[in-house]
Amino acid sequence: MDPDTVIAAVSIFTAGITIAIGSVGPALGEGRALAQALSAIAQQPDEASTITRTLFVGLAMVESTAIYCFVISMILIFANPFWNHFLQATGS
Amino acid sequence: MDPDTVIAAVSIFTAGITIAIGSVGPALGEGRALAQALSAIAQQPDEASTITRTLFVGLAMVESTAIYCFVISMILIFANPFWNHFLQATGS
Amino acid sequence: MDPDTVIAAVSIFTAGITIAIGSVGPALGEGRALAQALSAIAQQPDEASTITRTLFVGLAMVESTAIYCFVISMILIFANPFWNHFLQATGS
Repeated sequence: MDPDTVIAAVSIFTAGITIAIGSVGPALGEGRALAQALSAIAQQPDEASTITRTLFVGLAMVESTAIYCFVISMILIFANPFWNHFLQATGS
Repeated sequence: MDPDTVIAAVSIFTAGITIAIGSVGPALGEGRALAQALSAIAQQPDEASTITRTLFVGLAMVESTAIYCFVISMILIFANPFWNHFLQATGS
Repeated sequence: MDPDTVIAAVSIFTAGITIAIGSVGPALGEGRALAQALSAIAQQPDEASTITRTLFVGLAMVESTAIYCFVISMILIFANPFWNHFLQATGS
């Protein structure tokens, strides 16, 4: 296999596996927080607005870890500096 | 495979797997803390501001571990000293 | 593969996997401590300041384990004595 092929194959596989593994934790964490929020609203309906606001700000924090994985996957696909190097090296 | 290809392939794979595994723990930890915060607000609505403040400062501490992984991934992609060495060694 | 390539590849992979695995435990531990602190504040609101102070000192201790992994990763990338040895041995 020539270098181009190896780099392209590794980039593709890594981009997929990164977001695949990286989405497991955030999804479970957000699901748990959301489940507890619904339980808390049922327990204290008068505080629904406070609970909802805290929930959404917190979910944004959890979501950020999934976004890190998404950013790395996108970089590996569309702005991969190693791939650009091998493209220039082979003159294609 | 020549050294350039090996180093590039390892850097790509490691950058992806680092943030993938590194996001699981923070996401689960933040989800658990957020769930408990919502439960605590439902239990003591009068202390909502204290609970919320403690929650967000604590979430920032947990988030920092995910940021460490993100920093290492970015360094491996864009500021990899080993890659720069092999680029200079091959004169390309 | 020549020695330079092997050492660089192993250093890159180890740097990534170190902080990836090393962040899982601290994140889960901090999430658990934070969750319990919020539960304690809801149970004894009058002691909120004592609970918060103890929480943050404790979180700093837990965070230190993640920082150890981060330091090792950074050393492997930017101040690796083995890598420097092979650089001098090959005269490049």
